Amino acid sequence: MTLAEAILSKKLGKNVYAKDSVEIDVDLAMTHDGTTPLTVKAFEEISDRVFDNKKIVIVFDHNIPANTSKAANMQIITRDFIKKHDIKNYYLDGEGICHQILPEKGHVKPNMVIVGADSHTCTHGAFGAFATGFGASDMGYVYATGKTWFRVPETIRVNVTGKNENISGKDIVLKTCKEVGRSGATYMALEYGGSAVKALNMDERMVLCNMAIEMGGKVGLIEADHTTYDYLKNAGVSNQEIAELQRNKISITENEETYFKTVEFDITDMEEQVACPHHPDNVKGISEVLGTPIDQIFIGSCTNGHIGDLRIAAKILKGKSINKNTRLIVIPASKSILKQALNEGLIDIFVDFGALICAPGCGPCLGAHEGVLGDGEVCLATTNRNFKGRMGNINSEVYLSSPAIAAKSAIKGHITNE
Amino acid sequence: MTLAEAILSKKLGKNVYAKDSVEIDVDLAMTHDGTTPLTVKAFEEISDRVFDNKKIVIVFDHNIPANTSKAANMQIITRDFIKKHDIKNYYLDGEGICHQILPEKGHVKPNMVIVGADSHTCTHGAFGAFATGFGASDMGYVYATGKTWFRVPETIRVNVTGKNENISGKDIVLKTCKEVGRSGATYMALEYGGSAVKALNMDERMVLCNMAIEMGGKVGLIEADHTTYDYLKNAGVSNQEIAELQRNKISITENEETYFKTVEFDITDMEEQVACPHHPDNVKGISEVLGTPIDQIFIGSCTNGHIGDLRIAAKILKGKSINKNTRLIVIPASKSILKQALNEGLIDIFVDFGALICAPGCGPCLGAHEGVLGDGEVCLATTNRNFKGRMGNINSEVYLSSPAIAAKSAIKGHITNE
Repeated sequence: MTLAEAILSKKLGKNVYAKDSVEIDVDLAMTHDGTTPLTVKAFEEISDRVFDNKKIVIVFDHNIPANTSKAANMQIITRDFIKKHDIKNYYLDGEGICHQILPEKGHVKPNMVIVGADSHTCTHGAFGAFATGFGASDMGYVYATGKTWFRVPETIRVNVTGKNENISGKDIVLKTCKEVGRSGATYMALEYGGSAVKALNMDERMVLCNMAIEMGGKVGLIEADHTTYDYLKNAGVSNQEIAELQRNKISITENEETYFKTVEFDITDMEEQVACPHHPDNVKGISEVLGTPIDQIFIGSCTNGHIGDLRIAAKILKGKSINKNTRLIVIPASKSILKQALNEGLIDIFVDFGALICAPGCGPCLGAHEGVLGDGEVCLATTNRNFKGRMGNINSEVYLSSPAIAAKSAIKGHITNE
Repeated sequence: MTLAEAILSKKLGKNVYAKDSVEIDVDLAMTHDGTTPLTVKAFEEISDRVFDNKKIVIVFDHNIPANTSKAANMQIITRDFIKKHDIKNYYLDGEGICHQILPEKGHVKPNMVIVGADSHTCTHGAFGAFATGFGASDMGYVYATGKTWFRVPETIRVNVTGKNENISGKDIVLKTCKEVGRSGATYMALEYGGSAVKALNMDERMVLCNMAIEMGGKVGLIEADHTTYDYLKNAGVSNQEIAELQRNKISITENEETYFKTVEFDITDMEEQVACPHHPDNVKGISEVLGTPIDQIFIGSCTNGHIGDLRIAAKILKGKSINKNTRLIVIPASKSILKQALNEGLIDIFVDFGALICAPGCGPCLGAHEGVLGDGEVCLATTNRNFKGRMGNINSEVYLSSPAIAAKSAIKGHITNE
């Protein structure tokens, strides 16, 4: 069995396989400030009562603080819904990005079925959960019934081996995007494994699963292990519950026949990877894009706004000054990360360097505010998407990289790994 | 002579009086990201060379980081202008708000004539400079020629006496707005004096002059004294230059006959002041508005984003939590203030309290981004304007207060001075 098949089978209490259609109970449902109002509208056409006020999590992240009266009005609708239905878990003004908040606050656990009204909900597969993004209409049905249906996805196995201290989770997933292609995993599971994946911490594993959707993936998945359980403990999950999760651990045996295909690469001699305009699969080794002038650099987002990312960037930027032709925006992915970064002096380093720090949220990633590009400008971002116009201007270009490359490039004003 | 007459007379080397028209050399000209492009357009119709590349200061503050591609394009035009004309003094991404930057970086000195393409340029009158806001066409002429003309303004003298530790510069200027009215000082100078004004530090004095325009004032003015010179020293002005400024100090003798009128009040028994929707002169003693529910609180802006304001707010908020029905946005007025606030642990206090911290700039004050209000929402802001729609939504209401009242209200969720 693949990991996707095994999780869904365990949940359903019967064996299911790729291409089977299954109706399933949802363990956790998430919407944010951008998608809650439409979800509420769909929900209210079906029901006047949510399926379970403890299994819904609502997060404000897309337009924080509100950048328009429209965004503010959407937040009013969302606040009213939270109050009316006594939703127990919500994280509003500056608490952070949904895909960071859910694991950080202990809502994500192995073997869960999680749906969220955001395409990067697949992030949570890093914990061995079946987690996928939904449109608002489907989410309305989930909010009403707690149920949904899936076609059990086929699986592409991605085996990554080798050791290389210059290679981060972001480099691994960009390389995977290049190998699989933008629609190479459409409605499939991307199951990551191999020694190089096992060696990653949870923040880095989340990067791998976060970008599954950029290959068309339904879910990104990594088997839970001691790294997963350690993270859960820090996130406040009780020892008792962790012990139970360990007893119910799903272990798979790799079997080529169960996969749609297998992708394998070794990072030992791999160079840092950069996605070029205008798609995350337009990936090149950094040597091919060295020297590309950059107007704006963004370190943050659900992909690379983790504390580990900020630590890497701060270590590179400490004592340096920003290149005069470049601007840098740094946004921690959550308030907890911001607090940790304050405690460790990372924010001081960024401010001294010349960076703009904004309140935790998605920031400029989706082109709503806080760093929209001008005509002809080029951005290097640690985000997950560089579609034409993604950062708010169809006449601009976006490159994607790891935080280390972003930080080094902020010093030089062009793409560099030095 | 009034202070306005005395400054202009000294500058011109001949005595001029209220209602005289004078052509005058400008000592400092300022534009920001919102007004530079139009200024450049006007300038380029007249000239291809700026009058003095060391007497122009350009600041990015209104839309930082860029909230739209239009804003980003305006910043591109501005950056290109800076490069083309080798403008020596510019403060771009997250350096701070123009009216804070100019004094903080030592550009503002007593006896100067300063024009800026922003209505709150009158802030700098706190240093005994004749400083006023211009439209972009007039600024284009200044950028080309270094000259402009004024009608020498008549003066309203504002004498404030008494002692009261609960009363800040903001309370004093709101009380003044109430007494003078929204157009009571049209094209006039507001000359502040009296023991209560003398006792204020420069940050608080700037608040008084900042809001002169809310009464229609051409300039707000305070005589330079040891407090002024101490500030200049900290801002990096040389001892030699300060000694020269002291030798050239303008002292006026109050003479009722020279004033259009005199306004006097004593703060000893005055209560804190709050401007109610929808004008800064709709001012009430706080006892009349206690308990008004507040959805959003903003501490910041060129009026009250000084380090002293943040210290006052942090002292009140330390160890407390935000009211669950209210959100709080805190924005330091400059990068230097942000750094100082980081050093003193104020940012930690704000984040722990539940505030959103944004990069130095104007923030939500002008309704562009970073805290636009929703329909029916009420904001309490430490800013200078509460016109209908000022914060981006004509269906919202804005109250104005001091940072102390704003902080106390953030704990309670309604207007309070407890």
